[in-house]
Amino acid sequence: MRKIVVGVIGDSEIYNKEELIFAEKLGEELAKKGYIIITGGRTGVMEAVSKGAKKAGGLSIGVLPSACKEEANPYVDIPIPTNLGWARNTIVPLAADVVIAIGGRAGTLIEMCYSWIYNKPIIGVIGFGGWSEKLAGKRIDDRRQDVIYPAKTVKDVLQIMERLIKTL
Amino acid sequence: MRKIVVGVIGDSEIYNKEELIFAEKLGEELAKKGYIIITGGRTGVMEAVSKGAKKAGGLSIGVLPSACKEEANPYVDIPIPTNLGWARNTIVPLAADVVIAIGGRAGTLIEMCYSWIYNKPIIGVIGFGGWSEKLAGKRIDDRRQDVIYPAKTVKDVLQIMERLIKTL
Amino acid sequence: MRKIVVGVIGDSEIYNKEELIFAEKLGEELAKKGYIIITGGRTGVMEAVSKGAKKAGGLSIGVLPSACKEEANPYVDIPIPTNLGWARNTIVPLAADVVIAIGGRAGTLIEMCYSWIYNKPIIGVIGFGGWSEKLAGKRIDDRRQDVIYPAKTVKDVLQIMERLIKTL
Amino acid sequence: MRKIVVGVIGDSEIYNKEELIFAEKLGEELAKKGYIIITGGRTGVMEAVSKGAKKAGGLSIGVLPSACKEEANPYVDIPIPTNLGWARNTIVPLAADVVIAIGGRAGTLIEMCYSWIYNKPIIGVIGFGGWSEKLAGKRIDDRRQDVIYPAKTVKDVLQIMERLIKTL
Repeated sequence: MRKIVVGVIGDSEIYNKEELIFAEKLGEELAKKGYIIITGGRTGVMEAVSKGAKKAGGLSIGVLPSACKEEANPYVDIPIPTNLGWARNTIVPLAADVVIAIGGRAGTLIEMCYSWIYNKPIIGVIGFGGWSEKLAGKRIDDRRQDVIYPAKTVKDVLQIMERLIKTL
Repeated sequence: MRKIVVGVIGDSEIYNKEELIFAEKLGEELAKKGYIIITGGRTGVMEAVSKGAKKAGGLSIGVLPSACKEEANPYVDIPIPTNLGWARNTIVPLAADVVIAIGGRAGTLIEMCYSWIYNKPIIGVIGFGGWSEKLAGKRIDDRRQDVIYPAKTVKDVLQIMERLIKTL
Repeated sequence: MRKIVVGVIGDSEIYNKEELIFAEKLGEELAKKGYIIITGGRTGVMEAVSKGAKKAGGLSIGVLPSACKEEANPYVDIPIPTNLGWARNTIVPLAADVVIAIGGRAGTLIEMCYSWIYNKPIIGVIGFGGWSEKLAGKRIDDRRQDVIYPAKTVKDVLQIMERLIKTL
Repeated sequence: MRKIVVGVIGDSEIYNKEELIFAEKLGEELAKKGYIIITGGRTGVMEAVSKGAKKAGGLSIGVLPSACKEEANPYVDIPIPTNLGWARNTIVPLAADVVIAIGGRAGTLIEMCYSWIYNKPIIGVIGFGGWSEKLAGKRIDDRRQDVIYPAKTVKDVLQIMERLIKTL
């Protein structure tokens, strides 16, 4: 059996300390469960998640827009530079079994949409604004019957994860 | 001076005849103005726009997700197969000077977001639902000061276009 | 019937004036035949070909690695920025009906290989060194029965083109 | 310190049993050294390398052209579907610190060229024909001073690797 890969998406610029704490705690808990984490490899939410994963001895992969491994935050174990610019936003959704969105601006929304198109279950975190909150409980369009599952706490996310993983 | 390139984005599956009539009329009017049209090259809105452009003797380019020119609708003058799957949704926004969204599901929303990130002016058509209507008059995130300009009629679109082009 | 699209590939840095004259003359002759020209949109061979096409009133498209239309040489009619870095080298071969290689380093060789994989006829110009010369008359691998057709003069290229186009 | 990532590239269709034995042995030895292996994730050389890595308890990543994890061979630990078609050939070179080519047709040659452009050291295996042999000891173009380092045995590859890694 392959390990579960969890995509965590969110903004590279975060000014809300609570959001970073949430992301770090989430990374830690996901790593404890043995999930591999994949992100966009940059700052903000992506860095916090990988930092948490590292704390718990987990593995995180960062799919970068540039051609330079140096663009990765220091907690990424395996940086994957793509030099595809923002077209790299298609890859985290494709590589993930489940996608968790925390806040987010246009770039995160792109990743949510790719997750939707590629039929990946999406968990949308509530509490920090952004597109994960705006779309939580909703559908991006009518081609799927499920919704973006709303989660308020790290515990919520983990519970929804458990349920979703059984359906993979 | 290079010719203005207008990106028109929207769904490949349209069940509302009015929407197709709108798209065709828009394509015709844009072509009359001498604008080059770029779309995703497939069915639905994309086909209707190119059909209209063809009627007026205009030029339309279709940037396709597959590797096959045959995927292009019959009104595309220059099909550009990319074999990039939905990552091709990054290209129409980049090639366009102005982007016009008509309705649309997740794929169109991706193109609206790329347009937003790459700082292209966006016109959002109102009247056929979809993401162009949901986001008309709004911002996708706070990194830009302008909004997705709402337009109800083809005439509206053309008037906004005229104004936007002066700022390019 | 769609117009024939000819991909012309070659280096962005050319120090041999004869090579640029060849490329410009080729662009002019291709445009006279009514073919649409597609290149990587940058300097060197790409610029010379578009310059020639412009002289004859033809249309040339430039598929750029960056996100900026300004990267295009001044003779490109329709710049298509992709922000895909060198992954954009997959697109000219896909959009072309026939590919003509003039000289070239690693980037041109990539485009020759993509042309080979996507089953596009390739003409390899002899006389200016580079990969077009090294591979002229040869196969890149054994999956195709044809070869990279060698051409010494612009006239050669045009004659081979005529023959190839009949088989499309 | 990040772990060294080794890209191994080669054909998906291999009819020479010795070549597969070589690739498997190489994967095993690379994994024993603690290197992470990244390949195109498919059959042939890619599968043999991951099989060897698995035997030694190593980690291998497979960057796939399609959108389906199922395309990965059974020994890939982390499949990364890209849905980019053959444009995915740009990613293994970018993610690798060192690239090892075994045989190979046009697709492998594309990866060798991207490795060259992105300035990654390349080891070219001799003994099984293909582009790794044709280019061993040579330069793809004049922009680099080094060559594609020729290696006849797995031991050769490992020795060259050791030397190259000191320069990273």
